[in-house]
Amino acid sequence: MVELYGDERLDYLFTDQSMQIIQSRSVFSYSIDAILLADFASIPYKKGKVIDLCTGNGVIPLLMSKHTEVPITGVEIQQRLYQMAARSVEFNNKQTQIDLIHGDLKAMPARFGNDKFDLVTVNPPYFKTDHPDQLNKTDYLTIARHEIMVTLEEVIQTTSKLAKSGGKVALVHRPGRLVDIITLLRLNKLEPKRIQFVYPKPGKEANILLIEAVRDGKPDLKLLPPLYVFNQDGSYTEELSRLVY
Amino acid sequence: MVELYGDERLDYLFTDQSMQIIQSRSVFSYSIDAILLADFASIPYKKGKVIDLCTGNGVIPLLMSKHTEVPITGVEIQQRLYQMAARSVEFNNKQTQIDLIHGDLKAMPARFGNDKFDLVTVNPPYFKTDHPDQLNKTDYLTIARHEIMVTLEEVIQTTSKLAKSGGKVALVHRPGRLVDIITLLRLNKLEPKRIQFVYPKPGKEANILLIEAVRDGKPDLKLLPPLYVFNQDGSYTEELSRLVY
Repeated sequence: MVELYGDERLDYLFTDQSMQIIQSRSVFSYSIDAILLADFASIPYKKGKVIDLCTGNGVIPLLMSKHTEVPITGVEIQQRLYQMAARSVEFNNKQTQIDLIHGDLKAMPARFGNDKFDLVTVNPPYFKTDHPDQLNKTDYLTIARHEIMVTLEEVIQTTSKLAKSGGKVALVHRPGRLVDIITLLRLNKLEPKRIQFVYPKPGKEANILLIEAVRDGKPDLKLLPPLYVFNQDGSYTEELSRLVY
Repeated sequence: MVELYGDERLDYLFTDQSMQIIQSRSVFSYSIDAILLADFASIPYKKGKVIDLCTGNGVIPLLMSKHTEVPITGVEIQQRLYQMAARSVEFNNKQTQIDLIHGDLKAMPARFGNDKFDLVTVNPPYFKTDHPDQLNKTDYLTIARHEIMVTLEEVIQTTSKLAKSGGKVALVHRPGRLVDIITLLRLNKLEPKRIQFVYPKPGKEANILLIEAVRDGKPDLKLLPPLYVFNQDGSYTEELSRLVY
């Protein structure tokens, strides 16, 4: 049993219905971006430690937990979202594997120490806030989507501290920020190794960027085949229906 | 009539057989990369000036000349290649539009002055040379392909000087150098605006990178739809057969 508040609902995370997650249209629902990142990241399977920043309702730790035995930490700054994540973890009996922290990602290097994780994943807020005072800073979705609590630069600085030398940092973002992301990764000793662009359908511009870097890695970038979300007829592509329920 | 030396031959540049170019297996033949760059670059059609660095046998100026009335300068450091280019330009009666220079691209900003061109194109040598002494520096193909006479950094510095503020710089390179290229472009006030990756066929990693930056531009990157060279059955894709003879 799980307590649901307000407009919360329980959604299945996998087609085999093995896991459920608490979602809410007004507070937080995961996007395809999170699903793509959980699939794209190089998850250590038997040994190592993983941390997911900006974890929201815990979708990425839950998705990854199906494919690995290693401990996963999820960090969320918004208490309301942290509590949704915590209830979902409990509902799926994942408490021994997934440890959730209600806190600011910028405080995590002090908490865990530097060079601790084999994989750091993050689906950060996408939108720059030139006028943060014009935004509703108490709105859950606004905070999740805009660089109010944390900037892209702070996100990348933090991932660099948390990752071991040779450890991986995997991000999902908008392609329009590719130049900023690559510049910041290099500045923080994170060498981009794998990039995949996701296109809504054939013939359109990419709208999702997946990028994985290695702490202290050598330059050697691979550009993975493009991913298409929809076919021309609007149905999910084969690749996506494998991932999306 | 045109004089051909050694193993030189005349190839058609367009399916309508309107233009021919001198090629040679041992000295220089253009690659698909040059064709893709000439098609990808934002060519000014009526007004402006274009310069193509590392022009080789002049393939990019010749291809572009079919689509624009503006003057095009081509710069080639290897005399043997410069002469091939010059004969091809003359053979196609393009002398009034295409001006070829035998010289070092690094000397061009001093020759033309800074901030002079609306478009700078370059298909530079791709391969880093950690041990340049181990390469045959008199071999035409080796010089065209390796960073012997010029490094990527020098290429980008030079394009930045030659381009007007608001002018464009279009490069073709290997995707593995994306991080270097983006970092160097930003360092030289060139803001990447359009990127297109070219894949040999569906399901494979990208092997060609097309990137265009704007001098003093604002961040706003577009990721164009991927280009595939071959279909699964080995035939040229529709997009490519439009470009390739």
